[in-house]
Amino acid sequence: MKLYTYFRSSAAYRVRIALNIKGLEVEYIPKHLVREGGEHHLEAYLALNPQGLVPALEHEGRVIGQSLAIIEYLDEIQPQPPLLPADPGERSIVRSMALSVACDIHPLNNLRVLEYLKGPLAQDGEAVSRWYRHWVAEGFRGLEEMAKRSSADRRHLYGSSVTLADILLVPQMYNARRFGCELAPYPTLVAISEHLESLPAFAAARPEVQPDAES
Amino acid sequence: MKLYTYFRSSAAYRVRIALNIKGLEVEYIPKHLVREGGEHHLEAYLALNPQGLVPALEHEGRVIGQSLAIIEYLDEIQPQPPLLPADPGERSIVRSMALSVACDIHPLNNLRVLEYLKGPLAQDGEAVSRWYRHWVAEGFRGLEEMAKRSSADRRHLYGSSVTLADILLVPQMYNARRFGCELAPYPTLVAISEHLESLPAFAAARPEVQPDAES
Repeated sequence: MKLYTYFRSSAAYRVRIALNIKGLEVEYIPKHLVREGGEHHLEAYLALNPQGLVPALEHEGRVIGQSLAIIEYLDEIQPQPPLLPADPGERSIVRSMALSVACDIHPLNNLRVLEYLKGPLAQDGEAVSRWYRHWVAEGFRGLEEMAKRSSADRRHLYGSSVTLADILLVPQMYNARRFGCELAPYPTLVAISEHLESLPAFAAARPEVQPDAES
Repeated sequence: MKLYTYFRSSAAYRVRIALNIKGLEVEYIPKHLVREGGEHHLEAYLALNPQGLVPALEHEGRVIGQSLAIIEYLDEIQPQPPLLPADPGERSIVRSMALSVACDIHPLNNLRVLEYLKGPLAQDGEAVSRWYRHWVAEGFRGLEEMAKRSSADRRHLYGSSVTLADILLVPQMYNARRFGCELAPYPTLVAISEHLESLPAFAAARPEVQPDAES
């Protein structure tokens, strides 16, 4: 199993957490997203993963892009410990929380979008920061309310064990802190993330402890 | 089963296709995304769906937000016809294609984002159109290559039957045409979408034939 990754990619961060939870060993293959215009844009990588993004997982001759597809795959080939509840209704709520991060916050705030704002749209640093914080606030507001309803212990977004939703929360919270987002309106999310970040599977997945980390 | 929907929302369009494929009856409850600042922002709707977006599905006392979570739920409670292959590796590729639309194209181009570009970032119509077309091109380029590899008949993105990935493609293609995106570089996607749009389940889900449609 090989993981094409970049230490600072929050989508790769999610996959690293899932691999750690499942106890799966992978070979890490760093792809630097900035150096030389982005190693993920090089022809050899595009041949493997036409989407040209990290992370991608290579396993049994197949290359899988998209962090959520990878994590659902890991959960299917290695069902223990489960990352989704057994009941379809409960699964749907966990997936809904995960997707609120994956679709409504992260895509608006990743590197290529911030570069477009700075380049073609000629926005200054302050405008880019406001953009970043706006989408985090929009997404976290709904997620905070969902967490209040579905967390059983203020340590997990759903019930009282780690799910796919938790795996999405922590890298987003990490980035929110990095970009100076105001977090006071989301006490439940902050408490949950604080607990999760203390778990070994989450701690070992942090960007700054990856082999390709830069200061 | 109730669906909170808006005729022009492409995420709602996806769910309508899935419901039609599964032969499930729902009560349609339109939420106008523009009128009165957006009916999805009203308190009564937020109480149901804290994410404050459409679509949302209400079933058995639960309200599920996020179109992909809803479609996976429908596939689990009503397994026939299946929207995902049985094999985990094959499922992962279908999900990866679906997510490339759901995470890498659509979130950048939906109404709230275009409004932010026009409002706070003061971009003119031409700049907004360029933005729109840029992200469609970025996403479709990778998806076209994936389709060439995985479609068995140039009528479906994966193999030779309708999957979750097809359900994501058609509404995105619909929007790409609406915004005048150049489609010549994606002949496989265009051929697949053309076939899919001819199927009754897809045709009946088109925005212009919904009860809340406006010209």
